[in-house]
Amino acid sequence: MSDFPRWFDWVIEAAEVYDYGRYPVKGMGVWMPYGFQIRRRVLEVIRGLLDSTGHEEVLFPLLIPEHLLRRESEHIRGFEGEVYWVTHGGREELDVKLALRPTSETSITYMETFWIKSYRQLPKKYYQVVSIFRYETKATRPMIRLREVTTFKEAHTVHESFEDAERQVLEAIEVYKAIFDRLLIPYVISKRPEWDKFAGALYTIAFDTVMPDGRALQIGTVHHLGQSFTRAFDFRIQMRDERLDHPWQTSYGVSDRVVASLIAVHGDDRGLVIPPSVAPIQVVIVPITPGDEEKRGRVLSYTARVAERLEKAGFRVHVDDREWERPGAKFYYWEAKGVPLRVEIGLREAEEETLTIARRDTLEKVEAPLGEAEGRIRELMAQVESNLRRRAQSFFKERLLRTDSLEDAGEWVESRRGIAEVPWCGRESCGLEMEERVNGKVLGTPWPEEPVEDGKRCPVCGRPAVAWIRLAKTY
Amino acid sequence: MSDFPRWFDWVIEAAEVYDYGRYPVKGMGVWMPYGFQIRRRVLEVIRGLLDSTGHEEVLFPLLIPEHLLRRESEHIRGFEGEVYWVTHGGREELDVKLALRPTSETSITYMETFWIKSYRQLPKKYYQVVSIFRYETKATRPMIRLREVTTFKEAHTVHESFEDAERQVLEAIEVYKAIFDRLLIPYVISKRPEWDKFAGALYTIAFDTVMPDGRALQIGTVHHLGQSFTRAFDFRIQMRDERLDHPWQTSYGVSDRVVASLIAVHGDDRGLVIPPSVAPIQVVIVPITPGDEEKRGRVLSYTARVAERLEKAGFRVHVDDREWERPGAKFYYWEAKGVPLRVEIGLREAEEETLTIARRDTLEKVEAPLGEAEGRIRELMAQVESNLRRRAQSFFKERLLRTDSLEDAGEWVESRRGIAEVPWCGRESCGLEMEERVNGKVLGTPWPEEPVEDGKRCPVCGRPAVAWIRLAKTY
Repeated sequence: MSDFPRWFDWVIEAAEVYDYGRYPVKGMGVWMPYGFQIRRRVLEVIRGLLDSTGHEEVLFPLLIPEHLLRRESEHIRGFEGEVYWVTHGGREELDVKLALRPTSETSITYMETFWIKSYRQLPKKYYQVVSIFRYETKATRPMIRLREVTTFKEAHTVHESFEDAERQVLEAIEVYKAIFDRLLIPYVISKRPEWDKFAGALYTIAFDTVMPDGRALQIGTVHHLGQSFTRAFDFRIQMRDERLDHPWQTSYGVSDRVVASLIAVHGDDRGLVIPPSVAPIQVVIVPITPGDEEKRGRVLSYTARVAERLEKAGFRVHVDDREWERPGAKFYYWEAKGVPLRVEIGLREAEEETLTIARRDTLEKVEAPLGEAEGRIRELMAQVESNLRRRAQSFFKERLLRTDSLEDAGEWVESRRGIAEVPWCGRESCGLEMEERVNGKVLGTPWPEEPVEDGKRCPVCGRPAVAWIRLAKTY
Repeated sequence: MSDFPRWFDWVIEAAEVYDYGRYPVKGMGVWMPYGFQIRRRVLEVIRGLLDSTGHEEVLFPLLIPEHLLRRESEHIRGFEGEVYWVTHGGREELDVKLALRPTSETSITYMETFWIKSYRQLPKKYYQVVSIFRYETKATRPMIRLREVTTFKEAHTVHESFEDAERQVLEAIEVYKAIFDRLLIPYVISKRPEWDKFAGALYTIAFDTVMPDGRALQIGTVHHLGQSFTRAFDFRIQMRDERLDHPWQTSYGVSDRVVASLIAVHGDDRGLVIPPSVAPIQVVIVPITPGDEEKRGRVLSYTARVAERLEKAGFRVHVDDREWERPGAKFYYWEAKGVPLRVEIGLREAEEETLTIARRDTLEKVEAPLGEAEGRIRELMAQVESNLRRRAQSFFKERLLRTDSLEDAGEWVESRRGIAEVPWCGRESCGLEMEERVNGKVLGTPWPEEPVEDGKRCPVCGRPAVAWIRLAKTY
């Protein structure tokens, strides 16, 4: 994987995940059946965690009228340059221009003014999984920087007080940690600097992972919105003390990038390696059939027995019985698709009633008697899962450098080793100068806040440091 | 339900299903949490039936460039007047206008030219669940005639021959029958007349149900597309006989109207009545707490025991323990939401270890000892299910009239009794004249084809009839 972007383009095509570049609109692609199933299982993890913490799923219109989007002034300033506009319906010009939603704070807050009247209804936690649109001027990349982000999970919450909203930020962070932990995706959590927070937020907490080429990738953000939107929409409710006042909000989102990082973090030169918990197919069975008709029949009927048995045990099983493909080509095909375990069944296995099981992550093969098949497969899947976790974590740990020297940080970032942390005085001007000198981007300061040892100084201005600050090349 | 459209507007608001009319874009509304859960379970039924018949879910971009949409000439003629166009990104005018998809035949066929090369890959059956957009000039209605249809399930299939595609039409019809049967929604199946088929299709088969006010509602359509799109896109594959030729296609869709008809068919003056199989909450438990603290505690702890027991048995249970609401208000609230069974627990029930169970469909109450709770509830849910089916079928049967007289048909349709069938010679001119004289719309001829008795004549021209033809007021 010497050239990660090329590898990524190759793997999503070879594994039939996402067809990008052939669809005739820049920055937009197609989820193919196999990719759709990965996405579906990732969404099941996300939905499960949100539903179990009291989030309610909703679905808002795609189109936001211009006057709504413009209501909160910082917000529209942040998005204005990248909004797609619908101006015509049929042959008529529309009276009001309609934006393809870049995010839904405005339309959701607008409707909340009708739905929420009292503190008794709070906290309210809505979420939706939708397409959002951004007319990106930067280079687009499949699943990573799109003009149509097709898997935007955005949550929007309403609270009685600043503190309640802040507690919600903590809950959101815990939910996101749980999501990435389940998907075995390592991350750091940073408080984004003031100059890079979400347009309209008090502050933004972000999750970043590191791609195989050492660039950081933002994979989730959590915003304390304060009263920015509730004031802009004059959304007031009856408070506990009978006052009418503007409630407090948070919002937080993850996107297609969750799937992108799942692919990037675990994949290898042969293709995808999907963690068993979200693999559309956990066990692929490849019968290796002899030429002799009768022997062929024995292999196929034993294959059917094995498949039935494993399906009954609850595994997601697929039998590749394509007659016109050779076993070697099938192995190659399913390795590219990242199926965690491959079961090979030839005449020997059929006669001895055994299974030959190959692991996708290590490519090791083991044999197991049919009677122990379920147990061995369960065990092997657990081993794959923990090996992927260990591998991802150890790669990630080596991608973090803490140093007092801006030069070392610059070299680290430049040579794509990952994320560098240096002491920082807290001034925006020093942060921006670091970005220039390191030729990278500031990700922010560690969250939760970490004390800085006495004596550490900002390498730009020499003042005492108040925090470590993270820098990296980013996507 | 003397005024059905008003009832429908009321019920989707009262039951918090779909917020329509407050969102500031005409023809677009919001799926609220409760409505979203109904929609989700309906989609589970639809997805389950499609997945188990070899359909593969995909997700295509929303935006279709103008040149793609214009490729098939009849198709664009059919949709041109109602396409929304994106013309600007940020502050720039786009080089190529982008349509919000009105349906996806064009973009899917375009990508199939890359994906499908040989008959060996056939049949291919894709589907997606997406928003589609139509700039409707007719009066919009929540969930029934929208400008953003948020739950468009569209399937697109590819086949080796005309006959294979025709067999797929049959499979699609069977899938749709199974969907509507599970949701207890009655229907007739008609072959739409030539002048009302899908733009680009050889023919269209449609499912219609009847609303409480006697108007027909189209709830599903199946199209044999022939080679219209494969020719327009010069999509050719290697055929079984080695020739390169254009394959054959079908497409079929259902929409938000499935949920709309679920609501309309089963609801009553108190609100929704949701079939237990798709009810987000199957059993709501309302504790009726005495003022006395100790007795209150006994009722609440017994309530918790009952709830746990029913949840463990696999029912979808909700306990309404809101302290500031009176039981009467809660009954009213959950009746409007159509929860199939309500369990009332007061001091008597807590002391005698019983449950009082009220059915939503008949409003009858029965008592059951705690020890038999699961069995009785299962039994009652089955009774609700079969009662709703029976009720819907018997209403529907009375909405169909077969008559030789166009006058009788006209009176039937005019007085909103439902769908009328009259003999027809097969000529478009006679069909159109019938529409005028009956002041209704031709739905088409019965599918599967029915023989017409000798001697029946078209009431317009007097020629021998070749089929019955259906007429109704429609939404």
